[in-house]
Amino acid sequence: MRANVSKKTLSEGLGLLERIVPSRSSNPLLTSLKVEAEPRGLTLSGTNLEIDMACFVPAEVDREAAFVVPAHLFAQIVRNLGGELVELSLSGNELSVQSGGSNFKLQIGELGAYPLLSFPTRSDASYDARELARSLASVRYAAATEAFQAVFRGIKIEQLGGRARVVASDGFRLALRDFNAHGETRNLIVPARSADELIRVVRDGEVGVTYGEGTLGITTERVKMNVKLMDGEFPDYERVIPRDVKLRIMLSATALKEAVSRVAVLADKNANNRVEFLVSEGKLQLAAEGDYGRAQDTLQVMQDGSEPAMSLGFNAKYVLDALGPIEGDAELLFSGPTSPAMFKAQGDGGYLAVVVPLRV
Amino acid sequence: MRANVSKKTLSEGLGLLERIVPSRSSNPLLTSLKVEAEPRGLTLSGTNLEIDMACFVPAEVDREAAFVVPAHLFAQIVRNLGGELVELSLSGNELSVQSGGSNFKLQIGELGAYPLLSFPTRSDASYDARELARSLASVRYAAATEAFQAVFRGIKIEQLGGRARVVASDGFRLALRDFNAHGETRNLIVPARSADELIRVVRDGEVGVTYGEGTLGITTERVKMNVKLMDGEFPDYERVIPRDVKLRIMLSATALKEAVSRVAVLADKNANNRVEFLVSEGKLQLAAEGDYGRAQDTLQVMQDGSEPAMSLGFNAKYVLDALGPIEGDAELLFSGPTSPAMFKAQGDGGYLAVVVPLRV
Repeated sequence: MRANVSKKTLSEGLGLLERIVPSRSSNPLLTSLKVEAEPRGLTLSGTNLEIDMACFVPAEVDREAAFVVPAHLFAQIVRNLGGELVELSLSGNELSVQSGGSNFKLQIGELGAYPLLSFPTRSDASYDARELARSLASVRYAAATEAFQAVFRGIKIEQLGGRARVVASDGFRLALRDFNAHGETRNLIVPARSADELIRVVRDGEVGVTYGEGTLGITTERVKMNVKLMDGEFPDYERVIPRDVKLRIMLSATALKEAVSRVAVLADKNANNRVEFLVSEGKLQLAAEGDYGRAQDTLQVMQDGSEPAMSLGFNAKYVLDALGPIEGDAELLFSGPTSPAMFKAQGDGGYLAVVVPLRV
Repeated sequence: MRANVSKKTLSEGLGLLERIVPSRSSNPLLTSLKVEAEPRGLTLSGTNLEIDMACFVPAEVDREAAFVVPAHLFAQIVRNLGGELVELSLSGNELSVQSGGSNFKLQIGELGAYPLLSFPTRSDASYDARELARSLASVRYAAATEAFQAVFRGIKIEQLGGRARVVASDGFRLALRDFNAHGETRNLIVPARSADELIRVVRDGEVGVTYGEGTLGITTERVKMNVKLMDGEFPDYERVIPRDVKLRIMLSATALKEAVSRVAVLADKNANNRVEFLVSEGKLQLAAEGDYGRAQDTLQVMQDGSEPAMSLGFNAKYVLDALGPIEGDAELLFSGPTSPAMFKAQGDGGYLAVVVPLRV
């Protein structure tokens, strides 16, 4: 087999797979990727056992062949090549990689022992790629990271009227975003770490979605993926969303982020980075206190609602996370000093964050 | 005491000190910095016990005062302020930091317990700041990092005719650079880690140099420093510089760096990342071999000298380090397959690197 391929295209494809394929594993074959050469090009595939990924790279190929190579070494070699065109050729158990004055002979692995990876061949629904990636990225922070119940480490995708919704929660805060879908969205839970890879890979155009047996298939122009889903019941998050708003304030999200970051410098790390929010008379006063001193900041806000004033304590990190995806003006909706508070982007119904205040 | 100071200037000064002052220490006072307020401005000073540093920040001050504050918190607070002007004021044991809608009360430390720092008041010699920083940065890599004899972890500064020279070596390789000096340069050894701070702080203009008792004073427009020197005798490095060059090649430093990086991907990590250099007939052939395969690269070179061909093995990392400071064309001077090789920038007599080849 001989293949001529553009260094840039091959390098981009290898770059995508490099993120998935582990660089170390107790099973060394899993650190490899599979290359299938066909007349139109090369299909590169790899897995981390949570996500299988395949990427097609156009190439001139003289004859069909399939082989397995160390993923990271191959990617590193191609990335460092000097020329613009790469010539791959297979002879015996060596892959030769040639470009400009460089010649590499890379030992290939045992093809028969490589796991069988399968990829979607049809689409059950489709999303706008940017919308899907933005939605997952907006709620990702609210998923739990560690010793929490497994479902809290996932992002739920569900149908909501004619739209799709992604939801994440760690029990202390919740984030959701609605976005447009074409076709049926089924309820499922994607591991948050696999969602990170989706966010990276899914860039623009349309994303095809395929429902499998405990898997979600994803098809983009460049890439096909099969993502293992999580079992279990996602908690009934709707009941933590307060219905009865008593005080609403509106202000620049950036100004609030900066002020919270500022006062949080002196907040007590051992008391949940507590920052006090005191709303009254069109002002939001932030205050924090710790071992080294006290901090106070005052912001002008637009204010309405049935209560004229309210005082709540928040974990500064949770407030900053909730504000993260909000550009322009933010809307903060309070239902009482101990009830969950809501953070929204003004004029954008898609994103909602819910943060439980700290106890007094 | 009340002081009005520009946020930008104060933040820059604190940023310089933040690099020196440790963020944790068994003696919490050492994580603080001292502020001396005088009519013309504030002098900020701090130490890591290896380097003492003082930085002057112009300010409007109503009355003299001196106090000690937690360095990193103070720097973080000032950096995050929204306004352009900062008002500092002292009342009781609190420093108030005010700007825009923000107000911080920071507890001050015990001034009497803070170590006495001294700074140079005269200059014995002077260097061009860029030249000094560039020279130190060029040889820094060759200093030893760990369990080596202490002097190998330092950079020697010495007089050489009318110029100054910096030298570093870990016993396997050596780097030196000569640069212009005004006045007498004394032989001394600066700890490599303190040299890193000098490289960062010394930017442009003239640098005044002061010889103290086991210390080197440094004065720039913004900053004064006192650097603790290393004791001991720097090894006689001159004798490893080969006098008898048998083969010389010239080629683009960038092309050589890229080719060495390329073939090194397959070099054996357990055999010093060995890369073979084979020079003959106007060509430099690089080759490496490891568990995963073999790599070869060929570069055109200009070649002269008494020997028509030579083959040497090098640690790829040492070659890349030696080439690091060289821009444009590089000159490689070989004295034999087991003799130290020299790397120079063509047409720039200042920099010289010496690398000992690996044994066969």
